[in-house]
Amino acid sequence: MVAPVVLSIDAMSGDHGHTVTVDAALLALSEIPELKLILVGDEAILAASLAAHKHVDVSRISIRHASEIVEMHESPSKALRNKKDSSMRVAINLVKEGEAQAAVSAGNTGALMATARFVLKMLPGIERPAIVSAIPSINGHVHMLDLGANAECDAQQLLQFAVMGSAIVNAVHGIERPTVALLNIGEEEIKGNEVIKAAAGMLATSGLNYIGFVEGDGIFLKDVDVVVCDGFVGNIALKTGEGVAKMMKQFMQEEFTRNIFTKAAAAMAMPALKALGKRMDPRHYNGASFAGLNGIVIKSHGSADALAFSNAIHVAVREVKQDVPKRIAALLAATLGSEPALEPLK
Amino acid sequence: MVAPVVLSIDAMSGDHGHTVTVDAALLALSEIPELKLILVGDEAILAASLAAHKHVDVSRISIRHASEIVEMHESPSKALRNKKDSSMRVAINLVKEGEAQAAVSAGNTGALMATARFVLKMLPGIERPAIVSAIPSINGHVHMLDLGANAECDAQQLLQFAVMGSAIVNAVHGIERPTVALLNIGEEEIKGNEVIKAAAGMLATSGLNYIGFVEGDGIFLKDVDVVVCDGFVGNIALKTGEGVAKMMKQFMQEEFTRNIFTKAAAAMAMPALKALGKRMDPRHYNGASFAGLNGIVIKSHGSADALAFSNAIHVAVREVKQDVPKRIAALLAATLGSEPALEPLK
Repeated sequence: MVAPVVLSIDAMSGDHGHTVTVDAALLALSEIPELKLILVGDEAILAASLAAHKHVDVSRISIRHASEIVEMHESPSKALRNKKDSSMRVAINLVKEGEAQAAVSAGNTGALMATARFVLKMLPGIERPAIVSAIPSINGHVHMLDLGANAECDAQQLLQFAVMGSAIVNAVHGIERPTVALLNIGEEEIKGNEVIKAAAGMLATSGLNYIGFVEGDGIFLKDVDVVVCDGFVGNIALKTGEGVAKMMKQFMQEEFTRNIFTKAAAAMAMPALKALGKRMDPRHYNGASFAGLNGIVIKSHGSADALAFSNAIHVAVREVKQDVPKRIAALLAATLGSEPALEPLK
Repeated sequence: MVAPVVLSIDAMSGDHGHTVTVDAALLALSEIPELKLILVGDEAILAASLAAHKHVDVSRISIRHASEIVEMHESPSKALRNKKDSSMRVAINLVKEGEAQAAVSAGNTGALMATARFVLKMLPGIERPAIVSAIPSINGHVHMLDLGANAECDAQQLLQFAVMGSAIVNAVHGIERPTVALLNIGEEEIKGNEVIKAAAGMLATSGLNYIGFVEGDGIFLKDVDVVVCDGFVGNIALKTGEGVAKMMKQFMQEEFTRNIFTKAAAAMAMPALKALGKRMDPRHYNGASFAGLNGIVIKSHGSADALAFSNAIHVAVREVKQDVPKRIAALLAATLGSEPALEPLK
């Protein structure tokens, strides 16, 4: 028998709150037999929402009351200080207390990160968490980090990101020695800044499968498993990619609705266009890990629909099954030597 | 009668040298009646290349011999020091000496930048040149800078970039007060770094039409004329966008060649797909300005074909007609006060 996986769901989070998270939870339960979920939030609202569905298996889904909600644009420090009974905080507390093995939230990224760090602490030897996600590439997908947790990073942090990315890809995709590249610019005059040069030197002797620099286009076009960069550059690259994909989609819609002939062509081309849409569908990539924490927290996009949020639940399940934090700690010790592993938990 | 525009062409530059630049030169001459071109490079090679074409109007195209070529991966400092008779150097010298009003090259970016700075010097009040180019956006296009000349920038430089971008868009597109945005990240926890916050403060009181921050997707989706960032982030964003566009093109090709039905659909959809391709065609955006120099130098992509290189020639002609360096200097004086304008030319 497969061991159960228990997740806490910040059910009040995101732009749509329980109207999305409850549907997503039920969808994920139908897809993953070993899954059990604890919905965290306003008990009356969540009970009513569940009651609206038929055939809810109450042995696999329960509600934990939380009286507050962290707003999407609330200051992280205020949320952390003042909302100790928020659905976000309680969901993460459940991980800390061992009732859940991971938490999933579509809430305010900054507040979620601050709360997760405060409650779960960092793995020994990791200075800062990083946001990591799979994104589509010509070879299937690539994992990229940091996508926005750290606006400025030193070389040591970039090395830690490389370790975390390698451990996740190894754990979740079974690739023994994932290839790792540093995101850099290719202008002849100024090949990168001092931080990136130092990180390249450290990666070359780290024992990781470091393959060198990639430029922005290489994220999507090169055969690489993990792309490492600071959170400012990573967030810009991620959103730039989203922007170009949306622009091209818009251009295609304009061109295919231009006249009766292009509309007829679009009807015929629909299967191919739908297949293209599916390959690029950001919902299938929803669910970013907060890597480096002493616990698993998965961040869904705030605007996620039920399909997208359920994908974030799948990401959490995969990380739980492979005990990703433990694997990160082990790879970190193997890569950097035993010293950081001896550092006490803060 | 329209005043002639005289350009020097680094005819040996780029991945394809004279095999592309000569065709591009003749194409541009056929499109722009007032254009005159000086092809700079190996006289024998260029004369033979021109002789292979019929009906070359020798009153509008001439050859200036240069005995050396700067290689695509040559060190900028070595090129500057050792190749004083390179086609690149001679083409820029012609601008300095007033024989040409602008130079166009597909050569090594670093060497071109170093040579242009050394020969032409900076405009008073500008610390460093920036690479600026139009890129496609949902509203037509947007100008972005810096695309790779400066890996690290301070707030004052970002302000200067905003001035340069505004002056170029004003001059070339006739927009009276172009909107300017700073590229930033949207994570709630860390909205930008100290440099960007300081630049935002300076822009808000600069008198430029500053509209605030845009995120990576906003480059392509928001209604903005000028997007300002440092050269590291700008280069990553530019190439990330190129990578996503190439990936989507590849995915479309795969989906439309999957079976006989999708192939038939592709044939029907060809007019719409071609129109899409044309809107995204990077050749129509080829030609980046080195803004901030006391003269006009346009950089073509190294891999440009004749159509793309001719587009870079068009960019140069537009900048010459509007005397872009003079407009940048004037807007800089108006924005920053007269102090920098009093700084002597270096």
